[in-house]
Amino acid sequence: MNDDLILLGHGSGGTLSHRLLDDLIVSTLSGHGPGEQNDAALLAAGETRLAFTTDGYVVDPPLFPGGTIGSLAVHGTVNDLAMMGARPLWLSCALIIEEGFSRATLAEILSDMRQAADLAGVRIVTGDTKVVPRGKVDRIFITTSGVGVLEHDLAIHGANARPGDRIILSGSMGDHGIAIMAAREGLPVAGLASDSAALWSLVEAMLGQAGPAIRVLRDPTRGGVGTTLKEIAGQSGVTLQLDEQQLPVTPQVRGVCDILGLDPLYVANEGKLLAVVAPEAAEALVTCMRRHPLGQQAAIIGTVEQGEAGRVRMKTVVGGMRVVEMLAGEQLPRIC
Amino acid sequence: MNDDLILLGHGSGGTLSHRLLDDLIVSTLSGHGPGEQNDAALLAAGETRLAFTTDGYVVDPPLFPGGTIGSLAVHGTVNDLAMMGARPLWLSCALIIEEGFSRATLAEILSDMRQAADLAGVRIVTGDTKVVPRGKVDRIFITTSGVGVLEHDLAIHGANARPGDRIILSGSMGDHGIAIMAAREGLPVAGLASDSAALWSLVEAMLGQAGPAIRVLRDPTRGGVGTTLKEIAGQSGVTLQLDEQQLPVTPQVRGVCDILGLDPLYVANEGKLLAVVAPEAAEALVTCMRRHPLGQQAAIIGTVEQGEAGRVRMKTVVGGMRVVEMLAGEQLPRIC
Repeated sequence: MNDDLILLGHGSGGTLSHRLLDDLIVSTLSGHGPGEQNDAALLAAGETRLAFTTDGYVVDPPLFPGGTIGSLAVHGTVNDLAMMGARPLWLSCALIIEEGFSRATLAEILSDMRQAADLAGVRIVTGDTKVVPRGKVDRIFITTSGVGVLEHDLAIHGANARPGDRIILSGSMGDHGIAIMAAREGLPVAGLASDSAALWSLVEAMLGQAGPAIRVLRDPTRGGVGTTLKEIAGQSGVTLQLDEQQLPVTPQVRGVCDILGLDPLYVANEGKLLAVVAPEAAEALVTCMRRHPLGQQAAIIGTVEQGEAGRVRMKTVVGGMRVVEMLAGEQLPRIC
Repeated sequence: MNDDLILLGHGSGGTLSHRLLDDLIVSTLSGHGPGEQNDAALLAAGETRLAFTTDGYVVDPPLFPGGTIGSLAVHGTVNDLAMMGARPLWLSCALIIEEGFSRATLAEILSDMRQAADLAGVRIVTGDTKVVPRGKVDRIFITTSGVGVLEHDLAIHGANARPGDRIILSGSMGDHGIAIMAAREGLPVAGLASDSAALWSLVEAMLGQAGPAIRVLRDPTRGGVGTTLKEIAGQSGVTLQLDEQQLPVTPQVRGVCDILGLDPLYVANEGKLLAVVAPEAAEALVTCMRRHPLGQQAAIIGTVEQGEAGRVRMKTVVGGMRVVEMLAGEQLPRIC
């Protein structure tokens, strides 16, 4: 591997991404130490606590079953705010468009974006549009940033998981990544669509049900559920113990993964969340989540244990024990 | 012209940009009417008034005399906040990098970015990094968003110019655009460099000197001084009268413009501002600006007049009268 060049794996969300962020990007730009990243920054504006986040979207193709790059850009940024427990309020939208892009397709993407924002209760309040010559960008990239407000003083953070806590996943794994891959390859799979959705209304219900019992919220996007759990285990200095039998996967995603040799544990989601919660609150919280349209498949998938910091283990369906590592390299570029 | 496709001119900042924003992008995303755009959105977070802005940077080449895409991305976003009279506080940074990009060049860009942020007094608090396959993006694009705080209740806005007001330009025109063009074409011009700079410290001094007398602040980036003045004239419903003799242009910029047939009035700047101020405050404000390193060439370049809304006229050096229009088409793509 050539250490002098940026590789696709540096954008995967996995091990290479973490190394590039820790060694170069975050250390240079913010001066923060390794592993201090969360989905959004917390800021104090007078008496008001704000969350602030950004994400660039480069998904290929820009239109796919279940959404477009426009709705995806809204959902992803809304979710990064929601994962801090912040109510998403305002978004910015920076478009970079290739010369010759279809105006009708742009209109479709923008309309989908507005609809997603309306549904999520956020306003797109500022933006920028650049057009670059043909061949200098692939169709359209969208960067959204978001500002939200924390209406409580809960500490929801990747470093807060404690031994005994339960791990909850809000629904099935891998739908977004597999839907994108199928769309890109022209594979027609009936019933397969991205799970892209704005999670704030689910988070709001969860905060109302179990507020102080919620230690960590995270949306398992790039790198999937496996990589996100590894991050939480590392930040909190604990071991996570998963039960593979409890991990929800649709037959469609299972089928495509089996054929292509992919592990749904590492496939990106865009409308799912992981929560780490105090044990006494877990069952009631799952019941609450299942009443919400975005949490109908919610399940307790594991527990937090004392033990080696940063370790994730999984009891497999056949009864063995598997060590879960971060995604290494790049499984599938440009899924978000 | 094919109305069904997005053209380079749609990103120029000129007439085509305005039409695309009014007819499609802003109307779809925000529901705002035409011409209501400012450099940033104003938001109320509890008792605190915030400004929020975003810009995508696609400059070619990413390293140029006087800066890099990194410092440019900081300056541009800081300036959009400053033009609302807001103190810039926090930035986000979304990187989209081409596979195979040099890690050393990335380090140089990020280091330049951090230095620009430190100098401007802002912190880069959140970010995102995507890597896309070779050929799907040209080297590196950076989108920065910024959040600032309004520490006063002045109404500084493009619609506030009033007959009798004076128009001030903080320094010479076109240095950024011409430096980028020369770098791209490999033209060696001694003493030619981008004017890219963060203008908040200059704005802060101006607010201290003449706060309530300042009606409009605007940085003349894409489309240059000419296009920005046309925007102000339109938003305020007034005529602007310029004096060409007062417009500062360096000999280097003048020389390159003469050779290439460009008009410095339409060339992009990244470290200059236009101010519209009450007549009684104008002279003292120019004196104050000239004491600041970024305002040494500040000059009164014209006046606001009653008359046809949206009209800009210029008394030329040879004594004639010229009508100033918006930039039509694309003069020079990818200067920011």
